[in-house]
Amino acid sequence: MAIDPMAIIGLSALEARDRMASGALAAADYMRGCLERIAAMDGEIQAFEWFDADFAMRQAEGADAHRKSGRPIGPLHGLPVALKDIIDTRGIPTANGTALDADRVPERDAGIVEKLRAAGAIIIGKTVTTELALMHPGKTRNPVNPAHTPGGSSSGSAAAVAAGMVPLAVGTQTGGSVIRPAAFCGVTGFLPSTGSIPRTGILAQSPTLDRVGVFARSVEDAALLAEVLFGHDDLDKATMPAPHPRLLSVASTDAPVRPQFVFVRTPYWHKASQSCQLAMEELAEHLGDGCFEIGLPDAFAEAASMRERINLAEMAKCYHRYARDGGVRLSPQLSEALERGSKMPARDYIAALDWPDYLYAALGEIFQRCDAIITPAATGPAPRGLESTGDPVFNAIWTLCGTPAITLPLFSDADGMPMGVQLVGPRGGDGRLLRTARWLVKHLETDGQGD
Amino acid sequence: MAIDPMAIIGLSALEARDRMASGALAAADYMRGCLERIAAMDGEIQAFEWFDADFAMRQAEGADAHRKSGRPIGPLHGLPVALKDIIDTRGIPTANGTALDADRVPERDAGIVEKLRAAGAIIIGKTVTTELALMHPGKTRNPVNPAHTPGGSSSGSAAAVAAGMVPLAVGTQTGGSVIRPAAFCGVTGFLPSTGSIPRTGILAQSPTLDRVGVFARSVEDAALLAEVLFGHDDLDKATMPAPHPRLLSVASTDAPVRPQFVFVRTPYWHKASQSCQLAMEELAEHLGDGCFEIGLPDAFAEAASMRERINLAEMAKCYHRYARDGGVRLSPQLSEALERGSKMPARDYIAALDWPDYLYAALGEIFQRCDAIITPAATGPAPRGLESTGDPVFNAIWTLCGTPAITLPLFSDADGMPMGVQLVGPRGGDGRLLRTARWLVKHLETDGQGD
Repeated sequence: MAIDPMAIIGLSALEARDRMASGALAAADYMRGCLERIAAMDGEIQAFEWFDADFAMRQAEGADAHRKSGRPIGPLHGLPVALKDIIDTRGIPTANGTALDADRVPERDAGIVEKLRAAGAIIIGKTVTTELALMHPGKTRNPVNPAHTPGGSSSGSAAAVAAGMVPLAVGTQTGGSVIRPAAFCGVTGFLPSTGSIPRTGILAQSPTLDRVGVFARSVEDAALLAEVLFGHDDLDKATMPAPHPRLLSVASTDAPVRPQFVFVRTPYWHKASQSCQLAMEELAEHLGDGCFEIGLPDAFAEAASMRERINLAEMAKCYHRYARDGGVRLSPQLSEALERGSKMPARDYIAALDWPDYLYAALGEIFQRCDAIITPAATGPAPRGLESTGDPVFNAIWTLCGTPAITLPLFSDADGMPMGVQLVGPRGGDGRLLRTARWLVKHLETDGQGD
Repeated sequence: MAIDPMAIIGLSALEARDRMASGALAAADYMRGCLERIAAMDGEIQAFEWFDADFAMRQAEGADAHRKSGRPIGPLHGLPVALKDIIDTRGIPTANGTALDADRVPERDAGIVEKLRAAGAIIIGKTVTTELALMHPGKTRNPVNPAHTPGGSSSGSAAAVAAGMVPLAVGTQTGGSVIRPAAFCGVTGFLPSTGSIPRTGILAQSPTLDRVGVFARSVEDAALLAEVLFGHDDLDKATMPAPHPRLLSVASTDAPVRPQFVFVRTPYWHKASQSCQLAMEELAEHLGDGCFEIGLPDAFAEAASMRERINLAEMAKCYHRYARDGGVRLSPQLSEALERGSKMPARDYIAALDWPDYLYAALGEIFQRCDAIITPAATGPAPRGLESTGDPVFNAIWTLCGTPAITLPLFSDADGMPMGVQLVGPRGGDGRLLRTARWLVKHLETDGQGD
């Protein structure tokens, strides 16, 4: 029978997963849809750093054969997943966005790649990252308008999902590298609590801050993927042994009561575009009693600089090899950042390490009074041009505090560029945050307030 | 009836504890013995920074009244314990060895002081520390020969136990501040595994390295005191929730088989005095098959400098207030150390933080083959003069690696100055290390090889 690839890739990851599990949809047919979409779009968008259609197809056919054999299948069986190109993949180039690692082919999968394979996911390709996951942009364009940046550093992962080339992608965030590109490209980006997902086999830029996050087209799809990635890993000391969270089932249940939101402008509100400020204020107003505003203590104005101290100092240590061997093959931006990091006094760095718990303690009162903080995902829509990936300032507080965050593509500006609403929950409250996010999406859909 | 105070303080802490628990000995009589000894000795030794005989006596009488009332009593009931003067005591001056804190009277007890009081111990006084627990000596002299340093930074705690003024004392070690003074003064010093004893309410110099240790006149007495101090504390992130170890009962049981030792000269062997080298080699030889020698990998030669990096950098942060306000009230040694610490690049500090686990991993093979490492506690006997507290280089590796260590007063040089034998065990193997130490002491006593 003829299958319309566009209809297939229109399915949510969850629907596609269920159909493939039941045999109603072949992984090969689903993959064919993705491949056609990539062939049609990626010439312009350039989300992929490494991609091999035959290899992807063979894996899909293998997934079908596996299922037909009657052997048990995992929760992502047959689903293509794209990986940011700083995540090690055995036998597949992983260039970390720098010419210095152009020929690098890891001998081992990152811990989360092992989890993905074990769950039946198909590694469809490696997506473009900024240089060493910092500022210097890659080649990727924003699928909504190729004249605009997709954001970064997880540029390709966000763009690949936004363009419908893949249902799911994985990225990382040290500053705002998951939430911001997701918001710029108009998809759902979910950054779980610090310590939830092991980072073994992923380029370490700043171990105190580095976190894995996911890109999807819905909250449920993000939950489906993130749940597979959660877990303890002895090789990543930030992860703790803990019962595996049931993210998808929690996210899929309806909140027992209408969620309560707290609107937080943050000390960086003046950096938000007028379109962003208006959208956020409208949303807060629309939620009525379900949302009240709180001003953060002045100390939060320090969050961005404290986060940067930690990032620069740890990067100077983690990227020592690149600083030593890089020379002209490093971008001026990166060289300058490494220089600043190498000059950071240990005393200032150690002092900055006190701030996450200090600031998080100040959030405790807020989280006692609400299900989620509601705040901008970025300063506004994706800037025009590709020379900058945009300003991560609205991600600094939450990255530093280790709180889970999700961005929802609920708004767009006059030019049709998407804007994200960021929801933030308490550490460890990932499932509930997803449930609250799903409630908000449905609530605005039913009210037709989504634009 | 008349009681001979000297006979009383000749009792081990364990014997005294048992007699007081049974009512055969009054806490007041035991205290009287300690007070007489302090009156006789401390004028010359100057182990105490703060001491109030009436206050101590009242507590002892209260302990007796408590016991007579039939209420349950703790494992240290009636035992006087001296505390290094960087350990906060509610209502009792805690000057941290600096004029800057001369008038400081904490409003709260340190976590371990709460544990001690709950266990029935009597806080008999605060002992002299070097300036802010670093290098600059206090006024204390070595009880074995007052012309010699007692070592530091826990100078007074070691001296008070060595002089028979108190049966038990508490100190801290960041470099070699428990093991070294214990060895210099000829007592047993025990430094439990990193993360065993909470440091809440104790002057923080270098949180990565700071550890609480105990001084006693026998291995069993050290186990009795340390067991009370162990435990998790939410306010000290280095402590982990774990079942409370039964240090005393494990230390008191006989080893099922003769313990196996590994003699380690360390890369710092050339710094050891000839008397120390000979004593260690004799001991290793005397143990015969029970001891074989292993040379540590070259990387261990870096341990001292990596430990110092961490210490200086964290001290520059923790002592920021002293550096800012201290001026001439800081010793030149401390000012210079703070200056070096404040110039430490974060990158070098962060790199040094990798070393404890890196070096400890290299010790794994050794600990698979033995019960304990046997190595010098210091470079030799206590140096003559009071201007220096001696060289902690033989403590650097073990402090950095977080391994438990104990020093035993098994040797003395031609002038009768004591020398310690340091035993080191794997992290978390505290009870077994104590048991092995007790075996060694008994073995040498029965062989008459103790000198």
